[in-house]
Amino acid sequence: MSRTQTAAVRVRKIGAGDPRDVEDEVAVEEPLEIRVAHGEGGTDHPLVLTMRTPGYDPELAAGFLFYEGIVRGREDLIRVEPVTARAAEEEGNRIRVILREGLTPELSHAVRSFYTTSACGVCGKTSLDSLWARTPPPIRGQAPRVPAKTLAAMPDTLQREQAVFGKTGGLHAAALFGGNGRLLVLREDVGRHNAVDKVLGQRLLADALPLGDHLLLVSGRASFEILQKAVLAGIPFVAAVGAPSSLAVDVAREFGVTLVGFLRGESFNVYAGAERVVD
Amino acid sequence: MSRTQTAAVRVRKIGAGDPRDVEDEVAVEEPLEIRVAHGEGGTDHPLVLTMRTPGYDPELAAGFLFYEGIVRGREDLIRVEPVTARAAEEEGNRIRVILREGLTPELSHAVRSFYTTSACGVCGKTSLDSLWARTPPPIRGQAPRVPAKTLAAMPDTLQREQAVFGKTGGLHAAALFGGNGRLLVLREDVGRHNAVDKVLGQRLLADALPLGDHLLLVSGRASFEILQKAVLAGIPFVAAVGAPSSLAVDVAREFGVTLVGFLRGESFNVYAGAERVVD
Repeated sequence: MSRTQTAAVRVRKIGAGDPRDVEDEVAVEEPLEIRVAHGEGGTDHPLVLTMRTPGYDPELAAGFLFYEGIVRGREDLIRVEPVTARAAEEEGNRIRVILREGLTPELSHAVRSFYTTSACGVCGKTSLDSLWARTPPPIRGQAPRVPAKTLAAMPDTLQREQAVFGKTGGLHAAALFGGNGRLLVLREDVGRHNAVDKVLGQRLLADALPLGDHLLLVSGRASFEILQKAVLAGIPFVAAVGAPSSLAVDVAREFGVTLVGFLRGESFNVYAGAERVVD
Repeated sequence: MSRTQTAAVRVRKIGAGDPRDVEDEVAVEEPLEIRVAHGEGGTDHPLVLTMRTPGYDPELAAGFLFYEGIVRGREDLIRVEPVTARAAEEEGNRIRVILREGLTPELSHAVRSFYTTSACGVCGKTSLDSLWARTPPPIRGQAPRVPAKTLAAMPDTLQREQAVFGKTGGLHAAALFGGNGRLLVLREDVGRHNAVDKVLGQRLLADALPLGDHLLLVSGRASFEILQKAVLAGIPFVAAVGAPSSLAVDVAREFGVTLVGFLRGESFNVYAGAERVVD
């Protein structure tokens, strides 16, 4: 386990018997500043500061920029590199992304921004329309078709692989599976969206987008934003251990994504695209 | 139960026996645009668009503006009112906050902004320093002192009061308790930070801030941002059903907040300020 992903703390345990002061572990949460520059030697400037669990920061940065619509693929990124800290306590908390020269990211069209302008409307429908403008056509009828049995086994796989973090109980997980049920990438973070960004960033850096034949599993709930990330990456199958929101269901249906919720073993719910869940 | 907080969806249930298509409920997630105007008759402009579960929108807006440092108390707000929709599907998804005339919110000093400028630094320590600048002195040694037994009963109270939403399984909850263990305000949302904003907004609109003799309980994990909101509202006691992050523990210790985690009945952990947990 990485030293930087968990931290030791003194904690008082209350319960049966007398209170005991013991050493325990918590998940590390620290800020990461993502800076961007255009081309080698370009001046970098800060883009965002996000709270995250250290580790896989280049993937987090790549996934974040992908979700924001700033980069569309591997060719838009020259390099992602750590920034030398100005003080010891900032060590590792700043990262620089060098974008392809000539890339003119439409920052005003970035996803976050379309939520902060009134032009895009404030109903589910117009939000979906905005999403349409950025995504490939929906992927109805395509692979993967996943046996219910394969799905049922995924939470166990997730939990087994998460075991190194089991002692903190404080991390969300996101995992990418192949259509055959094989685990390809698993990332964890105190932030649920960060975990998904790390997974998608890993694939982007490997120049492996879009992810037409894959399944995304999240350890928590499925919100609009999780579905949005999946759609942008071309993932046709999303499963959540927790509940989906109404807008997550709407996005799944609109974009031809299969959406499974409450996946906790043999029993689960299919909210959209049930034809991809087979015997 | 409000019609707008849950939505009916068709869902395929997979499990023992043949798959069944049934009607089920999901938690509603919809965008809310918060607009602000200065004084009666002032022109309003959009401030932010956030995904939330409808209900208690004025409280959400007030809590959000408080957290952002735009309003400091009830006297900064003239009124919060719905905005007439331009289309039926936008109905209820826009709200206008009329700020006291002459209020000049230091938007550049707002909390979110200090995460997007490099001036504040990117280590836990400097983030904490920024928080110091906005908060009253820490509240070490003050009330409330809460018996372990009272704490142990709180998750049950939360779950009982949450029962109306039990069927979706998709909502986070935040609740404010008096030092005597009495539940004062409970709010739910698909977004965990929204739930806290609604609770704090309710108290702000009632002109009841700061909350020196209260306890904040959250149904999920305790992150930096949750602790930050508590500190800004002067709450000296935070309890989480889930795990805390490292930075949440740091904030609690630095600001004299008692932090309880894994509160799931008789057994729980105290990460900071254990002197306020009594027999």
